[in-house]
Amino acid sequence: MKSLMHTFLLSTLFGMCLNVNAITASPQNWWVGMQSQQLQIMLHKANIAKQQWQLEPHAGVELTSITHTDNPNYAFLNLTINPDAKPASLIFKSKSGERFEYPLLAREKNSSQRKGFNSSDTIYLINPDRFANGDNSNDTIQGMLEAANPQERGGRHGGDIQGIIDALPYLQKLGVTQLWLTPPLENDMPSYSYHGYAITDFYTIDPRMGSNELYRELSAKAKQHGIGMVMDLVLNHFGSEHEWMTDKPTADWINFNGDFANGKHATSHARQTIQDPHASEFDKRQFSDGWFVATMPDLNQRQPLLATYLIQNAIWWIEYADLSGIRVDTYSYSDKAFLANWTKAIMTEYPDFNIVGEEWTSNPAIASYWQAGKVNNDGYTSSLPSVMDFSLQEALIQALNEDESWNTGWVKVYQSIANDFLYPNPDNLLVFADNHDMSRVFTELEQDLDKTKMAMAMLLTTRGIAQMYYGTEVLLDNTDSNDHGDIRIDFPGGFKGQTSNAFTGQGLSDEQRDMQQAITTLLNFRKQSPAIAHGKLTHFSPKAGIYSYARISDQQTVLVFLNKNSAAKSWSLAYMQEVIGQHKQAINLFTNQAISLIDTVTLAPKSATVLIIE
Amino acid sequence: MKSLMHTFLLSTLFGMCLNVNAITASPQNWWVGMQSQQLQIMLHKANIAKQQWQLEPHAGVELTSITHTDNPNYAFLNLTINPDAKPASLIFKSKSGERFEYPLLAREKNSSQRKGFNSSDTIYLINPDRFANGDNSNDTIQGMLEAANPQERGGRHGGDIQGIIDALPYLQKLGVTQLWLTPPLENDMPSYSYHGYAITDFYTIDPRMGSNELYRELSAKAKQHGIGMVMDLVLNHFGSEHEWMTDKPTADWINFNGDFANGKHATSHARQTIQDPHASEFDKRQFSDGWFVATMPDLNQRQPLLATYLIQNAIWWIEYADLSGIRVDTYSYSDKAFLANWTKAIMTEYPDFNIVGEEWTSNPAIASYWQAGKVNNDGYTSSLPSVMDFSLQEALIQALNEDESWNTGWVKVYQSIANDFLYPNPDNLLVFADNHDMSRVFTELEQDLDKTKMAMAMLLTTRGIAQMYYGTEVLLDNTDSNDHGDIRIDFPGGFKGQTSNAFTGQGLSDEQRDMQQAITTLLNFRKQSPAIAHGKLTHFSPKAGIYSYARISDQQTVLVFLNKNSAAKSWSLAYMQEVIGQHKQAINLFTNQAISLIDTVTLAPKSATVLIIE
Repeated sequence: MKSLMHTFLLSTLFGMCLNVNAITASPQNWWVGMQSQQLQIMLHKANIAKQQWQLEPHAGVELTSITHTDNPNYAFLNLTINPDAKPASLIFKSKSGERFEYPLLAREKNSSQRKGFNSSDTIYLINPDRFANGDNSNDTIQGMLEAANPQERGGRHGGDIQGIIDALPYLQKLGVTQLWLTPPLENDMPSYSYHGYAITDFYTIDPRMGSNELYRELSAKAKQHGIGMVMDLVLNHFGSEHEWMTDKPTADWINFNGDFANGKHATSHARQTIQDPHASEFDKRQFSDGWFVATMPDLNQRQPLLATYLIQNAIWWIEYADLSGIRVDTYSYSDKAFLANWTKAIMTEYPDFNIVGEEWTSNPAIASYWQAGKVNNDGYTSSLPSVMDFSLQEALIQALNEDESWNTGWVKVYQSIANDFLYPNPDNLLVFADNHDMSRVFTELEQDLDKTKMAMAMLLTTRGIAQMYYGTEVLLDNTDSNDHGDIRIDFPGGFKGQTSNAFTGQGLSDEQRDMQQAITTLLNFRKQSPAIAHGKLTHFSPKAGIYSYARISDQQTVLVFLNKNSAAKSWSLAYMQEVIGQHKQAINLFTNQAISLIDTVTLAPKSATVLIIE
Repeated sequence: MKSLMHTFLLSTLFGMCLNVNAITASPQNWWVGMQSQQLQIMLHKANIAKQQWQLEPHAGVELTSITHTDNPNYAFLNLTINPDAKPASLIFKSKSGERFEYPLLAREKNSSQRKGFNSSDTIYLINPDRFANGDNSNDTIQGMLEAANPQERGGRHGGDIQGIIDALPYLQKLGVTQLWLTPPLENDMPSYSYHGYAITDFYTIDPRMGSNELYRELSAKAKQHGIGMVMDLVLNHFGSEHEWMTDKPTADWINFNGDFANGKHATSHARQTIQDPHASEFDKRQFSDGWFVATMPDLNQRQPLLATYLIQNAIWWIEYADLSGIRVDTYSYSDKAFLANWTKAIMTEYPDFNIVGEEWTSNPAIASYWQAGKVNNDGYTSSLPSVMDFSLQEALIQALNEDESWNTGWVKVYQSIANDFLYPNPDNLLVFADNHDMSRVFTELEQDLDKTKMAMAMLLTTRGIAQMYYGTEVLLDNTDSNDHGDIRIDFPGGFKGQTSNAFTGQGLSDEQRDMQQAITTLLNFRKQSPAIAHGKLTHFSPKAGIYSYARISDQQTVLVFLNKNSAAKSWSLAYMQEVIGQHKQAINLFTNQAISLIDTVTLAPKSATVLIIE
């Protein structure tokens, strides 16, 4: 199933008879009017390095050079495309009589000015295989290595892009404004391929999910529902069934010489070796070059042809699928100089775009190292706008499960957020209670509805870009096991034979309906609240099991009180004068009641109170 | 017992008859040739503000102004002392006929070039009341509020400066190179005064400890034993029996208007409010201005007369007692702008000096905020050379008590040290296993001799300035309780009626002797090892319960292996090639045996192996 989408049929020089011997060109097309005028086209075909290519004249486009490697099956065409070049189908001919056409397209209007997701957004994270099966005909694809097996936790369940398209009205009503799908790219692996992180073709949507065209349709239709698309890209590794394993473009394409060595070359996950001034060279290499697992070989991004390939791949998807953001898997595991170049190239092309890197650490000193604008002691400069706030995720779970004391409970959240001084841009942190790699929030909070509502109310009103994992709104749960298959459980209503349906509400428990309603209220408030979108956060030292803060914009002030106590509290507002000012009254988000701000407010037991002052 | 040491007897204008009505001048003297040419002399006496003072002419010295406050009992003389002024007894006369002399002394040679403690040092921390009673005659002083009560955990036990002077040969042999005494300044408080942090006179050694002269003698004699003196200063608060409580120099001398309000104005200890961009003004004030306890009122260092008083007090003690360093109590609790000025003034006067601030946090992002050279996002600039590494202290105890896993055990130490990228100068971190405010290391390590030896071996060979709490060398222990009185237990041999004596070895257990020998070996090696003093640290990801690192200077390489396992290990050195290089052999510090560096070394169970390559 290799790259059928971007294989060009060759004809002879005179076009007389069809040649079925195909060249794969990556990327399969490009656009005129890009910021960068350079384009590298990777050609792959047996012994293609022997061909001498020429470009038929087209104004503003020049074939400046051709790079050959130690593998004769690859050639890299280096083109310069002037800003005034017109769209065309470029024609390349070889001296030996081969020929192929290469589409140079017009860009969508304002493509370079596209806005990335930001702190006004709520990103809904979906494992597409587990959300909704909109097209049963693609559950199993002949010729692909893994067939559907919905009964298996680690098997493919049949969810697809059509299922997400069908769910757009539901997602819009819920209040979602961005979709992050775990990688929908081809993962033609023999088993455990549903998660999407073992990519076997960087330019093709997995046929069991749909097609490139359907992914583009999802993006267009989502936009009509006020929802942007965030694509999950993997720069660090790829699937071991990729043709690169058997036919490497260069000898140094894969780290540790393409050899996992039975785990000797596994990554140490010791991400701090990147910053640590005392780290040994041994450990630095073991982290950066080490493989995730045997089935996910580690890419050597120091190889410049590969670096360019990965940069262009990201830009291609932004342009092709009209993306509003990228999420980068296992961010720091890639070569750090490459990451600087990769982010810079994308952000130069799209200055208002957003990219969030997954740096899984609860140490904000390490996470903030990667954010654009950070002045690092070692001089490292990143252009990555957003990182994930794992510190807050960890703190939030602890805060709600621990008894209160000077160093347990809410103080964990308070101290985590206090560390924002390390970030050049705390508003561009992605905040979340869980994700596809973590035990679900409802499970972690001991299946306690009240605590789960408090957790989500906090995440959806504090600073940062909110991210919610699919099904949190109906309390999906993995109490049975932490197996990834259980964490990525089928969304109710997305698959045949389920007893409940979150889309229609049918069969949901009272607790599930309650949660779904609370999330709908919070998300839809968040969608239009200037204070939540970009208001200044001022928070107060937790006291008596209550954590409180304000979000203040010119137009609006929002006060949030998170009361962990099992009893209601009459709560003096004296300490909050600096944020309440002269205001005398607010509206309670959940009850719509007017609340006096003079003296005290009453906080219900184990609840979030959100008061709006306008 | 107010400031007898710096009270000048007044005579009439004509010197005919002695006037017993005393003026207190602070500081009691000054020096010529200081970097700063400004001197503020605080005069205290009933209604002294009514006097109009004149300075009898002395070349290079000018009385530029006199500052009066809202309290008529104080006057502040502002002098300018030119660099070429000669030592003298300045004579001040008032128009109403009063007169006092003020000594302007010559400085010791090279005073301004004095070297502060540094990473070659081991600082030995002593509670002077609990170390050795060298002078029984001063155990109780008539007229002071608290008498000796050695049976009481929180009482005064009678230890004194003479006891420390007598112990200098022992300390030198042990290998100590600096002494940090908890504050020996007057604490004339009714109870619980032995610890020294409730200062009632900033210019006078507590008479139960000795005298200013004896403290100076200790400093001089310590120097002869190769030992420097580090003074413990308190800038944040003072003892509630200080005359400032009943006769405030200014109305704003004490925070929260001099009122503890039954704990309403207690500090929140929320130190992160200083860095937190979201902190409320309410919380910032509660932290910085809040009092420690009712008996320790909080000083308002924003008051410029007080700020100057505190700066001069520190310089006075450096100059008077020939100090090699200062330790600052509760560092961040003082006003941060003041701290910048205070450190800058001292470091300008003594560019090679050292000051270590106590910022009790395991968050290195917060601790490093205060270190000189740190580029902070909020623009804050500090001149504090050294901070304490509480993060490593906590990690070390956890590392030795926890089972090994991906996120427990040695990895805690490895990750803590990896955070050094946050510090402008990691070599100027103070490393320690415990101190006078913490449960002792032997207790925390479950009275396990092997673990305690490993902990100390690690601290004495990693980067930073080592600090050891008195009695660690004979396994002092507070397993009975965490009461400060038990943590600050009497040193064996320092007091009458004890059954063992650490100075002579008499009555020590085998474990105590073993520990004392190990510490002696480590400290004396540290004293002369260039690799430990300033060698580059390269450490390796812990594996199989073994944490290993190298210290490398031009002259020497030291390899350290900390084996937590209960079994001996044959340990391959392959991963260490980058630090071993071509060396084939090393000497084991503890056994003096030659050890081959080819292939493997044998690591004894639960032990530190220190190998020296020269």
